[in-house]
Amino acid sequence: MCGVIGIYSDKDVAKELYYSLYSIQHRGQESCGMAVLDGDDINYKRDMGLVGDVFKEDELSQLKGNIGIGHVRYSTAGGSHSANCQPLVGSCRRRKLAIAHNGNLVNANYLREMLEEDGYMFQANSDTEVILYILARYYKGDMVESLKLTMDQIKGAYALVIMGEDELVAVRDPHGFRPLVMGKKGDEYIFASENCAIDILGGEVIRDVEPGEIIIVKDGKAKSYFYSENYRPLKKSCIFEHIYFARNDATIDNLNAYEFRIRCGEILANADGDINADMVVPVPDSGWAGAIGYANASGLKVSEGLVKNRYVGRTFIKPTQEEREIAVKIKLNPLASVIKGKSIVLVDDSVVRGTTSKRIIKSLREAGAKEIHLRVTSPPVQYSCYYGIDTPNRSKLIASNHSIEEMTKHIGCDSLRFLDIEGMLKATENKATFCKACFDGEYPVKKIDKEEQGSC
Amino acid sequence: MCGVIGIYSDKDVAKELYYSLYSIQHRGQESCGMAVLDGDDINYKRDMGLVGDVFKEDELSQLKGNIGIGHVRYSTAGGSHSANCQPLVGSCRRRKLAIAHNGNLVNANYLREMLEEDGYMFQANSDTEVILYILARYYKGDMVESLKLTMDQIKGAYALVIMGEDELVAVRDPHGFRPLVMGKKGDEYIFASENCAIDILGGEVIRDVEPGEIIIVKDGKAKSYFYSENYRPLKKSCIFEHIYFARNDATIDNLNAYEFRIRCGEILANADGDINADMVVPVPDSGWAGAIGYANASGLKVSEGLVKNRYVGRTFIKPTQEEREIAVKIKLNPLASVIKGKSIVLVDDSVVRGTTSKRIIKSLREAGAKEIHLRVTSPPVQYSCYYGIDTPNRSKLIASNHSIEEMTKHIGCDSLRFLDIEGMLKATENKATFCKACFDGEYPVKKIDKEEQGSC
Amino acid sequence: MCGVIGIYSDKDVAKELYYSLYSIQHRGQESCGMAVLDGDDINYKRDMGLVGDVFKEDELSQLKGNIGIGHVRYSTAGGSHSANCQPLVGSCRRRKLAIAHNGNLVNANYLREMLEEDGYMFQANSDTEVILYILARYYKGDMVESLKLTMDQIKGAYALVIMGEDELVAVRDPHGFRPLVMGKKGDEYIFASENCAIDILGGEVIRDVEPGEIIIVKDGKAKSYFYSENYRPLKKSCIFEHIYFARNDATIDNLNAYEFRIRCGEILANADGDINADMVVPVPDSGWAGAIGYANASGLKVSEGLVKNRYVGRTFIKPTQEEREIAVKIKLNPLASVIKGKSIVLVDDSVVRGTTSKRIIKSLREAGAKEIHLRVTSPPVQYSCYYGIDTPNRSKLIASNHSIEEMTKHIGCDSLRFLDIEGMLKATENKATFCKACFDGEYPVKKIDKEEQGSC
Amino acid sequence: MCGVIGIYSDKDVAKELYYSLYSIQHRGQESCGMAVLDGDDINYKRDMGLVGDVFKEDELSQLKGNIGIGHVRYSTAGGSHSANCQPLVGSCRRRKLAIAHNGNLVNANYLREMLEEDGYMFQANSDTEVILYILARYYKGDMVESLKLTMDQIKGAYALVIMGEDELVAVRDPHGFRPLVMGKKGDEYIFASENCAIDILGGEVIRDVEPGEIIIVKDGKAKSYFYSENYRPLKKSCIFEHIYFARNDATIDNLNAYEFRIRCGEILANADGDINADMVVPVPDSGWAGAIGYANASGLKVSEGLVKNRYVGRTFIKPTQEEREIAVKIKLNPLASVIKGKSIVLVDDSVVRGTTSKRIIKSLREAGAKEIHLRVTSPPVQYSCYYGIDTPNRSKLIASNHSIEEMTKHIGCDSLRFLDIEGMLKATENKATFCKACFDGEYPVKKIDKEEQGSC
Repeated sequence: MCGVIGIYSDKDVAKELYYSLYSIQHRGQESCGMAVLDGDDINYKRDMGLVGDVFKEDELSQLKGNIGIGHVRYSTAGGSHSANCQPLVGSCRRRKLAIAHNGNLVNANYLREMLEEDGYMFQANSDTEVILYILARYYKGDMVESLKLTMDQIKGAYALVIMGEDELVAVRDPHGFRPLVMGKKGDEYIFASENCAIDILGGEVIRDVEPGEIIIVKDGKAKSYFYSENYRPLKKSCIFEHIYFARNDATIDNLNAYEFRIRCGEILANADGDINADMVVPVPDSGWAGAIGYANASGLKVSEGLVKNRYVGRTFIKPTQEEREIAVKIKLNPLASVIKGKSIVLVDDSVVRGTTSKRIIKSLREAGAKEIHLRVTSPPVQYSCYYGIDTPNRSKLIASNHSIEEMTKHIGCDSLRFLDIEGMLKATENKATFCKACFDGEYPVKKIDKEEQGSC
Repeated sequence: MCGVIGIYSDKDVAKELYYSLYSIQHRGQESCGMAVLDGDDINYKRDMGLVGDVFKEDELSQLKGNIGIGHVRYSTAGGSHSANCQPLVGSCRRRKLAIAHNGNLVNANYLREMLEEDGYMFQANSDTEVILYILARYYKGDMVESLKLTMDQIKGAYALVIMGEDELVAVRDPHGFRPLVMGKKGDEYIFASENCAIDILGGEVIRDVEPGEIIIVKDGKAKSYFYSENYRPLKKSCIFEHIYFARNDATIDNLNAYEFRIRCGEILANADGDINADMVVPVPDSGWAGAIGYANASGLKVSEGLVKNRYVGRTFIKPTQEEREIAVKIKLNPLASVIKGKSIVLVDDSVVRGTTSKRIIKSLREAGAKEIHLRVTSPPVQYSCYYGIDTPNRSKLIASNHSIEEMTKHIGCDSLRFLDIEGMLKATENKATFCKACFDGEYPVKKIDKEEQGSC
Repeated sequence: MCGVIGIYSDKDVAKELYYSLYSIQHRGQESCGMAVLDGDDINYKRDMGLVGDVFKEDELSQLKGNIGIGHVRYSTAGGSHSANCQPLVGSCRRRKLAIAHNGNLVNANYLREMLEEDGYMFQANSDTEVILYILARYYKGDMVESLKLTMDQIKGAYALVIMGEDELVAVRDPHGFRPLVMGKKGDEYIFASENCAIDILGGEVIRDVEPGEIIIVKDGKAKSYFYSENYRPLKKSCIFEHIYFARNDATIDNLNAYEFRIRCGEILANADGDINADMVVPVPDSGWAGAIGYANASGLKVSEGLVKNRYVGRTFIKPTQEEREIAVKIKLNPLASVIKGKSIVLVDDSVVRGTTSKRIIKSLREAGAKEIHLRVTSPPVQYSCYYGIDTPNRSKLIASNHSIEEMTKHIGCDSLRFLDIEGMLKATENKATFCKACFDGEYPVKKIDKEEQGSC
Repeated sequence: MCGVIGIYSDKDVAKELYYSLYSIQHRGQESCGMAVLDGDDINYKRDMGLVGDVFKEDELSQLKGNIGIGHVRYSTAGGSHSANCQPLVGSCRRRKLAIAHNGNLVNANYLREMLEEDGYMFQANSDTEVILYILARYYKGDMVESLKLTMDQIKGAYALVIMGEDELVAVRDPHGFRPLVMGKKGDEYIFASENCAIDILGGEVIRDVEPGEIIIVKDGKAKSYFYSENYRPLKKSCIFEHIYFARNDATIDNLNAYEFRIRCGEILANADGDINADMVVPVPDSGWAGAIGYANASGLKVSEGLVKNRYVGRTFIKPTQEEREIAVKIKLNPLASVIKGKSIVLVDDSVVRGTTSKRIIKSLREAGAKEIHLRVTSPPVQYSCYYGIDTPNRSKLIASNHSIEEMTKHIGCDSLRFLDIEGMLKATENKATFCKACFDGEYPVKKIDKEEQGSC
């Protein structure tokens, strides 16, 4: 639940990092940062807050350096501290390193304990520090070999950008859980969690970084290495990126998020067959694509039945208990004139805890909706993610311990239907192979840690 | 291009003002403020910035008072100064007054000169100060009579909320250009520029304040007066509120903005007849409703072809000339996989200067669109608005001095069609009578001033 | 309790205003502002806070204009609101005016009521707005005549800098209560509440503005006018400026504050005769000069017995009741090793309420002082000031309702002596004639208002 | 050039840390921080800025914990980055540690290289991280043994407060270069760089932490250990703390700073014999005590000849080259009326580069001083400090490469005299033994590193 950027250029990159971080702001709003290589030194700034608030013009112009990496971080429970801002910057054996990470290790705690046993001192609370320390331990100048040794140790999901002495490195874990795209703009190399960061710079997307791949850009040239020729597991691209997390304009592992979402809606509508309703209403913003797909296939019209306040962001006074409903309505206000007396198909991209759905349906009923048929364009989330999506503990996943009937009743809708796993896979059109562990519990990599480290 | 709120309650209203101002934030992002009546005193805070940034929890709890008014202000050229923040608060004849205003007078300069000739000193640069001074001159305790005398003088568009000694007042100009809605929540009275501000408090919309109406809430009761029984011109509700400015959930003068926008799209599609295109693409966010209407009527599918960055707000580093295109793409990134090689109907709610359309079309072409047919769900804007919509000088209105062919070429689309005035009126379903001067130059009230005062 | 600056130059003055406001920051820490004349326009910025915090480099460079005025404002009870920031800027009869004021009118309320009766609307809560409105009423282009008419109306203490269309004006009330100094730097004219503001710009002090004088700088030349040839009362320079308020380097009406303070200490010591004590201890910072004078005359040594924390400023967490003593000690910590077991003469410049003295003496006793003889280098403050010094209501002046014996007991010292009025006058060496109403109740101008307006 | 605080209590300590950090703010204005032990967790906040700006009331109340340490950091060249804020907080072998440090190691680089060779990754640029990592390597639960092993490695000056699992630790290096005082308030233990931090909490100073001493407070009791019984070098208390750095109310190693400074002035005056001058003028603030001493002994009167602006702090617009003199005068304005035509003895506590003295003397001359005899109440600084005082490189120390005659000419005074080393030692009254390496180059601990690490 983070985003990373890496840029290798022959001129200052801070401004480009700024623009590209801005474009992937949806991947993390808690903190952000960038580090640039200025000769032998690394200049950096990182802080809590949005990209537009953290970086001011005069500071950007002081962040001199033609190689740089950047990061936006999602707000995860417990780990909200400036010490967790990235990129991490450090030096080891007189070599400077900076690293930014998106993902989650399944053995971070195990590794951390091991390192602590060896006398290492951890100053933050994130997987990233674990990766950095292991890499530092191995790194004596040969980045590829050090990374291979590091990748031998770290298990789980990671997309990394690393800045070494005169090189920019991009790494994707052997299963390719988390996205990482490579682009070019003239002689400049750009790596990013999503292609929009390359698009907005006027760059061209070249390809995805491959599972297990290490790309090193140095002396103006990019070279590709692989963690291991022997260990090349099937790609396990995270399907939840396509369902919810990525922007509609993201094309990750050949699959475009928007088109996939449209197809999910269509397949769900077809599964529904004839439904007796007046209109399809999306839960904004992420339900729109699925709703359009559903409408296309069902012949129903899509209508905006919930108006989203575009200014609800980070600064909002904490509502008291009795004001909580006000806070919900500020975010999403039912469009009463449209839905009053109507039977609606409410389309959302996913249901995790069920609490938001419950509140939305309550407010729609109060605004006069006659019938509400909730349609979810993804399967029931029944298992926690170990690979970086911030799903809660299984016990809090409504689908893990309730039947469809129970959920219908709990959420308060008139009917409820999820897209099934088969349908979802059909919607991918086999563009890639995917991790779908949150739906079926088939974890490509076993969880090793008991407690949670702060993922990113 | 502003929004106002007034609340009369028997308990503190600052928190409710906060929530309701938050909900009409789209009506003005430059500055905001609120004033509350605390016994004989008026407490207030106003500052540059968004509601969520200006008001902090501890300050709100210090703004004691059970009657209050609030304001959000739009950033208009030249007038960006904290002295223009509202509500204005003052005292005259030992009576305290606070006022918040949405609209624009056509004789503000004339009146100001007259008042200055009489030795009045103006400290800000807005119509509102003119209104306040005239009201103050007349006001010796009888609010209704003073307001009638004031309304004799001020010409143009205004929706006002005023806080007197123990009363809350709502006023709408005799043509009813600008919206003002009245609601109740229990014994509490709420006035707001848009109904969403009443909805989110859990209140119920009662009705629109009528053109020329003065509603005074005092001693827990609301009484209605009219400026004049003799002068009751036809209602001239601003059609541009429905086309662009109001939120989709706004119902102003009986017409719901969303439904109107849908119908505009449908009527435009019907006028188009068969169009040879692959899909309908809205310009987000305001083009969505029209695009859905167009799609419904044309049988084409609506597709998201432009992805909007939800975090582009006020803090953004000023791009250099060569970065200007980056800034456009950060705001709206074409969804290349969807539009590549496709013939698209691009739907926008209005075209004013034509510069944004031009940039969007350029970026769509670069992303591979084959044909782009721009469809605008309102007529060509050919005349400046004198009543509070921030349209530029006529010379900058592309439609005022270009034919359709010239515009097509200038903007760079393959074809261009506007909804005609007749179609637009049809879409209103005669729910009210409207001011459409920006389209046909038939100004209900003649402009008197030569120079511009800061509207609001 | 404010400070004003005016600069007339042929180049931009914002930076110089900044430096000079910084130098008179001690005259007011609540808010500050500056206004500069840019052709026909007045640019300005004013805000709550210290000069160094309010003005940033990029803003200063945007405040273009070669004539300018500035203001620092003291925090007075009740009036702490950004609406009271100065300079006030306004326009009347298409003429722009800006004004900054130090002083207090004795008939501000009376005038305000009169103006309100005529329908004027007041937006702030300060004398300054009253002055501005009266001036505006008269002003039709002839500044001198308008000012004379204005001065006919306003009674009390005022030092004003005014910026008109192409002129800078400095005005001092007919008694010259508040200081106003005129300086030059090359062709540039500088007016300031204290000479340090001229010194730091490298300018030269020319002279004090005279009581009743109006100096107009226009077309590069300064011309002097007088309010009235007939009404030329004796100068009544505020003695409290010299006792406490002005900086040690201030020379106001020929009297240097530091030298005066030294002499006050000497005269007090001589009055004391032989005192059985080990050392003289000043209450920092304002007690130092008097303590040195006392030490010089008494033959005792001066010792730092209280250490002041240089960082205690505006941002400090409000202490709870039980932490209040901590807060006092943070500000002034007794130097235990110096005072332990010693008999000390504690010298302060003035005693107003007596509460600070009481707390200091308590902490000195806890630190081991054997005897504490409080010596005050000014007479007992028995009357409120109506002319701009922020003394409290008479009932809160300890000397107005307690005998020396009672005060000694209340404050907790072993003995207490004030400089008498005669001694104080002797210390002035007849350099000017002074207002000493706070000591003897002989008010040069009678108070007309009952309630208080916000002075400045 | 930093300050540390440690508090062990049975109730929350954040508020007390706040007050005590406020009182030692003079030891460091760049950044500050505190860490408190909350059960198994360490809560902390650290940021750039002054104590009063960094900590807000609501945050303090969230920093729950009854053991805590705090830090203020001085701005040293190159190391101005938030990553250098202290306390450092980390975990190792599942044990949490926090550390705050005042001092400078002479072998930090050597140790860091060694650790980096072992694969350790450094994230900041300070000695403190080196100490933390070494301690972490040894620490398996026995704090005393780990500290002894750590102290075997680290050479130089350090006063440390450390927070372990349920204990507060205070450590002073074997020479006792940097100060560290122990106090009690009821059952509460307080450690601080200066006693004022204990005074203001109402606590009582118990004693200095001894050179080489390790004091561990645990289970409500304090136990003392020593680094080594065999290695007990002579105490080398930093004399420069007494000359300049500590507050006047500091009593470090039995010597009170104020009394010492007075004596230095007296001894210097006696060495001077009869001097033909009108007055003694201190360079504020640090020259006051020496000036008083000089005046006492010489029979001359002390006069304030330079007025210091109390508001010159961190926020000040960078002056251009030609404005540099303005900036000097804003800080210190000559009191012209006092010094004009006078022959003055200007007393300063120390001369390092000579640039400030030069500028002050220039401005005094411009204000009319006839003769200026500069008297420095400490010996010429000829050697850089390796133990934490931020003296520049030898080449920039004016006394290291200029004779008295040359300095007199360069600085621009009429005569110049320093206190000699013998006189300085006499002024200490043998209250302790001191490090005076900056004056005589006799370094108690040899410098090992070539480059500089960021001291603290």
